Amino acid sequence: MPTNLSVSESDLHSLACMLLDRIECAFEAALDRAAILCARDGRLDGRRLDDNQGLCYELALIRADLLAAQTIVGAVANASAIDAALGLAFAADTITGLFGKLEAIYFECGLDTCELQALATGENVRRLRNEAGGMAALAKLGKLVADADGEIADVVLDEPTAMARDAFRRFAGDVVAPLAEKIHRHDLTVPESLLQPMREMGVFGLSIPEEYEGHAPGGRENTPMMIAVTEALSEASLAAAGSLITRPEILARALMAGGTEQQKAHWLPRIAAGNPLCAIAITEPDYGSDVASLALKGKRTEGGWLLTGAKTWCTFAGKAGLLMVVTRTNPDKAAGHRGLSLLLVEKPSHDGHEFICEQQGGGSLRGRAIPTIGYRGMHSFDLVFEDYFVPDANVVGGETGLGQGFYLTMAGMVGGRIQTSGRALGVMRAALTAAIRYAKDRKVFHAPLIDFQLTQIKIARMAARFAACRYLAYAVGRQIDEGAGRMEASLVKLFACRSAESVTREAQQIHGGMGYAEETAVSRYFVDARVLSIFEGAEETLALKVIAKSLLEDALSHINARGA
Amino acid sequence: MPTNLSVSESDLHSLACMLLDRIECAFEAALDRAAILCARDGRLDGRRLDDNQGLCYELALIRADLLAAQTIVGAVANASAIDAALGLAFAADTITGLFGKLEAIYFECGLDTCELQALATGENVRRLRNEAGGMAALAKLGKLVADADGEIADVVLDEPTAMARDAFRRFAGDVVAPLAEKIHRHDLTVPESLLQPMREMGVFGLSIPEEYEGHAPGGRENTPMMIAVTEALSEASLAAAGSLITRPEILARALMAGGTEQQKAHWLPRIAAGNPLCAIAITEPDYGSDVASLALKGKRTEGGWLLTGAKTWCTFAGKAGLLMVVTRTNPDKAAGHRGLSLLLVEKPSHDGHEFICEQQGGGSLRGRAIPTIGYRGMHSFDLVFEDYFVPDANVVGGETGLGQGFYLTMAGMVGGRIQTSGRALGVMRAALTAAIRYAKDRKVFHAPLIDFQLTQIKIARMAARFAACRYLAYAVGRQIDEGAGRMEASLVKLFACRSAESVTREAQQIHGGMGYAEETAVSRYFVDARVLSIFEGAEETLALKVIAKSLLEDALSHINARGA
Repeated sequence: MPTNLSVSESDLHSLACMLLDRIECAFEAALDRAAILCARDGRLDGRRLDDNQGLCYELALIRADLLAAQTIVGAVANASAIDAALGLAFAADTITGLFGKLEAIYFECGLDTCELQALATGENVRRLRNEAGGMAALAKLGKLVADADGEIADVVLDEPTAMARDAFRRFAGDVVAPLAEKIHRHDLTVPESLLQPMREMGVFGLSIPEEYEGHAPGGRENTPMMIAVTEALSEASLAAAGSLITRPEILARALMAGGTEQQKAHWLPRIAAGNPLCAIAITEPDYGSDVASLALKGKRTEGGWLLTGAKTWCTFAGKAGLLMVVTRTNPDKAAGHRGLSLLLVEKPSHDGHEFICEQQGGGSLRGRAIPTIGYRGMHSFDLVFEDYFVPDANVVGGETGLGQGFYLTMAGMVGGRIQTSGRALGVMRAALTAAIRYAKDRKVFHAPLIDFQLTQIKIARMAARFAACRYLAYAVGRQIDEGAGRMEASLVKLFACRSAESVTREAQQIHGGMGYAEETAVSRYFVDARVLSIFEGAEETLALKVIAKSLLEDALSHINARGA
Repeated sequence: MPTNLSVSESDLHSLACMLLDRIECAFEAALDRAAILCARDGRLDGRRLDDNQGLCYELALIRADLLAAQTIVGAVANASAIDAALGLAFAADTITGLFGKLEAIYFECGLDTCELQALATGENVRRLRNEAGGMAALAKLGKLVADADGEIADVVLDEPTAMARDAFRRFAGDVVAPLAEKIHRHDLTVPESLLQPMREMGVFGLSIPEEYEGHAPGGRENTPMMIAVTEALSEASLAAAGSLITRPEILARALMAGGTEQQKAHWLPRIAAGNPLCAIAITEPDYGSDVASLALKGKRTEGGWLLTGAKTWCTFAGKAGLLMVVTRTNPDKAAGHRGLSLLLVEKPSHDGHEFICEQQGGGSLRGRAIPTIGYRGMHSFDLVFEDYFVPDANVVGGETGLGQGFYLTMAGMVGGRIQTSGRALGVMRAALTAAIRYAKDRKVFHAPLIDFQLTQIKIARMAARFAACRYLAYAVGRQIDEGAGRMEASLVKLFACRSAESVTREAQQIHGGMGYAEETAVSRYFVDARVLSIFEGAEETLALKVIAKSLLEDALSHINARGA
């Protein structure tokens, strides 16, 4: 029996594990069925997948809920008492919700629901629900979370990671936080007074191996460290701190995966030093998540390529000195994603919301920052390339890298997605602690808001959701370093970003009118959180094209193996 | 059999009605039990209510879902085929959700769940779910909604209301919409170029009887008309048009309920003419929804009162020439809400974000607009009164009106809340139609977004929710005109405002990155929608203090009657 749990908690813990196991079986039965619905001749079929998008979307959401509950329940047996209670509360809420969602999927797939219903209506569910997820239990838990000032979800980190986390949290609180509101409200560019100390602290080289002057020890990536630093910085500001890491993260992983030795030796130390700063140009005005249709074209010229076309939502393109541009180098449209390459575009760094770079040979690159409701500080740019020259040396992977752009981008994306879940964690933690602080300070009906049951319940649910995201993100981070976790990176991104929306929304409600005022930080957390489910892979794209597809492929290969 | 429904739809319709009836019974059983838990000696007990806030909150949310489903299912038997399908789709989704929520409440109250579970797992639920709420049915429905450009939820309106609605929709589209983005993004004050035509169109006198030069015919209020105009204006802009009605609505209803004949004759025609514009000052910095504790004090002086204290979130206070100020006229704190009166404060109209009014006798009133993430155009002000003189003639109800401030405010609030649901309707309709337009225009993976099943399903669910809100709001509007619907006004406000958050969120997701850009109207709909659950009674306050309390009181009086 885990020593941090009381007898009755340990009992509930076993019960939650047992229920989650049974739900896992029920989910796998639905997956098998869905895989057959979406397959033709033993392989997933594009048309059938399209005809079952609604089903696939729900499957991805269910998988996310379920994996989050399994992960936190699995982890908290060795965690603090408060985390153990949060894990059980999350499991109780989630299990109840999962029965409804699974039943809908069973109906949809034409599966018999008898067993599922017997499980859902059993005494075990009632017990878990009442003892871990009932109103009295949640209220008590919310009070504990408030007493702890929201310092919960204490994931085990190795010593260097814990130290980095502490150092960056101090830096974020002391240096970033005082500037965050101003940068947001005046839509400023992240100032050098923030960038320079972050360069010195190694923010830009977190996933770059030491041999390339980065900070990932032992020649391998250190994803938990990257998440921890991201989270610490995002707690103070998503846009002026926590998101600085995304772009070097994507670019470094793409270079590690496909760059020539010379490119790695040249660029990785520079990226790690934050000099130049980087940006990633993938999305085009006419193509959002449909990477295979990208049209910005590169035309061969002497010694390199001339780029012509448009990109959009290129974050930090103004300030950046290096853009990773997904470019169609094979003019044959039929080549689809196999006609794409990664080109490294160098440009001068610009402050401000617009820029023009003109080359001596007549090429140009124009940029315009797109005004957004939040996520301000780095600016996301519309870019127009006209015969912009890029030398051959800047094709990632050199001549053999031509046509590899799609795969290298995807290699980078895994890093971008897990990093984004770290950003969501930081925003959630900021919202949770702000809500707790306000609820302690604010008096209504002659008592502090935190003394009211509904406030305590809301705090408990926000905290349980945050804790589930946090345990999941770090668990996936460790998987990624072991070479796995590709689908899970999308899954935790989906789950944490949706969670950040609901947690920041509830934090606003606790603030009442003040939650809507720009002078209150929680209003910024809310508009910032809204971007998370849209960028770095919109949730619909991740759910359908990555998560559901991967789940169904796995299910199908098991089915085929059984059949063989 | 209703003639607009096919045989199978008519069958499903009967089935939905039957299920909702059974759920109603199940809900009432939970209410009875909750009423007993919250009572002492046959009366609701404040302490016990506080100990059961979590339960009460859930009861209010369940009642809202259930009433919405009952109302739309009841109404659409006589509506268009598309509305009939939307009603069934909403019922199917809602009924599935309600079982989970009811079960949680049953667990919480210690009620036996056998019957509820038997109902939930019955063949009827599966049939309704599959035929009206399954993915294929939703996708088909979403396509129909898109083909109709979102012109759905065709509530029956009398001829004058339908005409007014059409006229205001045209005006809103032609005159308001072109200015809406600029007003929002530059945080401007609603310009006279919008106010003057709205004055002429009678916007400010919608609920003021004709005898007082308003536009409510036959001497009675016309709430559906007020909702229809609000909705039409809010579709173009929540803040620069649809919300102009809220304040005259609250003030006129308070005056009608408690003003002297002389006050009504003096003020109502002026308010109806929009000259002066009005504002309502209730909330104080230290007291949000806790009206009984309000502290801004009025001190008797010769011929009137001197006001000293602070108010906050007083929307339109700058532009307004008349403020309804809830004032503590009885210095005895123990008088609680019986010590409050309504004073009509006159002041010059100011444009801009700050103002100072100084009186000859030395009194002053200062105002400062609070910057907010949305709902921009009218500005919500912090106000500081210092010995600001108000003549006796401006005490609503005269000498006998002293101490009546709380009751008169509440009379006005019912109007403010139903009006706010009209605002939510307008924002939702705008988001829905924007999402449809974008989904038709935008191509991904070589086809318009609307051709994808997940888009269709999302559109169907958004439309079904909007339709449910709309049928409910107008039904409650009619009840209010019959002197009832007080609790229901809060309920529809709660339901429609939460719905506006989810509908605008989904509309953003359909827009992808563009949904986050300030240049795309849907980003404004999203930040505007966020205010709706916060102001005019925060959702927690409405759920606990109005809805749950009223439901439990009713349940208790039935229990007591049965016992007697």
